Amino acid sequence: MASKIRESLLSSLSAHQETYVSGQQLAEETGCSRTAIWKHIEELRNEGFTIESKKKRGYRLLKTNDQLTENNLLLGMETKALGRTIVVMDSVDSTQKIAHTLAQDKAPEGTLVIAEEQRAGRGRMARVWHSPKGTGIWMSLLLRPSLPPQKAPQFTLITAVAVVQAIWDVCQLDVEIKWPNDLLLNNKKITGILTELQADSEQIHSLIIGIGMNVNQEKKDFPEELLSIATSLSIEKGEKISRSELVQRVMYHLERYYQIYLEKGFTPIKLLWESYAVSIGKYITARTLNGELTGVALGITDDGVLLLEDEKGTVHSIYSADIEISAKNRGKP
Amino acid sequence: MASKIRESLLSSLSAHQETYVSGQQLAEETGCSRTAIWKHIEELRNEGFTIESKKKRGYRLLKTNDQLTENNLLLGMETKALGRTIVVMDSVDSTQKIAHTLAQDKAPEGTLVIAEEQRAGRGRMARVWHSPKGTGIWMSLLLRPSLPPQKAPQFTLITAVAVVQAIWDVCQLDVEIKWPNDLLLNNKKITGILTELQADSEQIHSLIIGIGMNVNQEKKDFPEELLSIATSLSIEKGEKISRSELVQRVMYHLERYYQIYLEKGFTPIKLLWESYAVSIGKYITARTLNGELTGVALGITDDGVLLLEDEKGTVHSIYSADIEISAKNRGKP
Repeated sequence: MASKIRESLLSSLSAHQETYVSGQQLAEETGCSRTAIWKHIEELRNEGFTIESKKKRGYRLLKTNDQLTENNLLLGMETKALGRTIVVMDSVDSTQKIAHTLAQDKAPEGTLVIAEEQRAGRGRMARVWHSPKGTGIWMSLLLRPSLPPQKAPQFTLITAVAVVQAIWDVCQLDVEIKWPNDLLLNNKKITGILTELQADSEQIHSLIIGIGMNVNQEKKDFPEELLSIATSLSIEKGEKISRSELVQRVMYHLERYYQIYLEKGFTPIKLLWESYAVSIGKYITARTLNGELTGVALGITDDGVLLLEDEKGTVHSIYSADIEISAKNRGKP
Repeated sequence: MASKIRESLLSSLSAHQETYVSGQQLAEETGCSRTAIWKHIEELRNEGFTIESKKKRGYRLLKTNDQLTENNLLLGMETKALGRTIVVMDSVDSTQKIAHTLAQDKAPEGTLVIAEEQRAGRGRMARVWHSPKGTGIWMSLLLRPSLPPQKAPQFTLITAVAVVQAIWDVCQLDVEIKWPNDLLLNNKKITGILTELQADSEQIHSLIIGIGMNVNQEKKDFPEELLSIATSLSIEKGEKISRSELVQRVMYHLERYYQIYLEKGFTPIKLLWESYAVSIGKYITARTLNGELTGVALGITDDGVLLLEDEKGTVHSIYSADIEISAKNRGKP
């Protein structure tokens, strides 16, 4: 748990960013002694904040760094519940695994597990998700919606919409969604989402949304075999991107859409999702466990199921598949 | 793991039930020495089997007991996979909890956890399920269907149909189903089913079906507050019921319907379920987390959702509720 005093110190300093705040003023605002203030400032410096101090003038926060620390993430977090309890770790097998354990241990809704590195990051179908140190956002969010398990797959779609908007806020890059859980930039993978749940027939007990975002990787950071299919925001934008700001915007939009979903149902989110989706209205090939289907992607149902109409006009409900946009679409408007 | 030799010994003995089988013959059939046979017979006696031995004639199995041991359960189990790996325990918190742990540890599909007593048996909505020692069947079955999580609630319904038929086979008692998960005999609870799952958006990882059956309780075994709402097969039938036979029949029918479901979908099972259901076509009151609804229960959907038509003709999809058959039905045919 972050020290409330350090959190409040950071708020004061960032409110006066680039100008000095006296130790006296900080002491009054936080209710600490000036010696205590000095100690907390030291702690913040250890966390990576650059804070200048000058005799008779006080302290000055130069600019926030991009280390993923609890303080860094909480400073600027505009949510009520989501991402308000943060577990930051350096290197983990998988943030999903840790979030599952925390869920069993009664962690509250909104608990966010975030790591600088995943040694065994997972994607859909237990596939490997490459999560190298310090360059991306590897995180898992715990929700506890009072909903039946049939609704769980919708959360992959809600999250996709939130991430698209967060990336727009921070990078002004236009991301597309590929059903069910990939976000693409120039046809390359930029983010993957993995929603897992523990439930009974009637009620979700815990929902764990894993989000893996390629942020500040350079081309040399990707293994050879991924270079043609994956990219990072930094490569596409041509500059370094603030990871903590991205986390904050994802939490902000996700909380907003989660609220809309609980109040108004899935329809408003579905419409947004379809407007961002790359495959809707196009010829696609869907590789399922039971074989391959080709046809036009009509849209998604209220349960998050993809509808595909084959050449005979039969509409198939697709729960799980790898989608490929067919070459047939070339030359179409 | 049961000794394969003891299993095969029991098969030989029960094939000749009430007549003697020579030690020599048993030794040949199992490939053991006669001394080894003698030791295994001792083990079986310790498990509760009554096996007579007579000089120059051999061994005779008098009748199987009703202790829930692995051998007792496997002898007469007519399944391929379900209940073929059995974990028998004396007293546990909850068989669900143990099955979840085994599922994480990669236990195979069909693994059955069964206990003589649950100290903290659970029903729907984390309600207490009274599971006293040695009188009922408290068990949890692990399945790993290649299906999306939306399909999980159907398994409560598949299991209900299997249990109705198992009870008919063993007791010739006509049990009714009350949506979502109760089986009733003369309007009193005889069995509860709790289906839990771990999954991602596309795929169930493990499905744990908990079944609690009141079998040989006498009236004095029920707490005062349950007497008016719960009963046992033995009370209704007026005689002791074989628990191991019941377990075997539940596994048999469940495997059969599971197979039908995988091959032909939910429709054939849904029709059976509706034919056993007490509420379909009747006025009911459904108490949900979001309030109360009254109307006619139309049936269930392919996802196991209950459809209720209110007085204005609006049809509601009910995912979770406590159902009460309304007094309005009285006097109706």
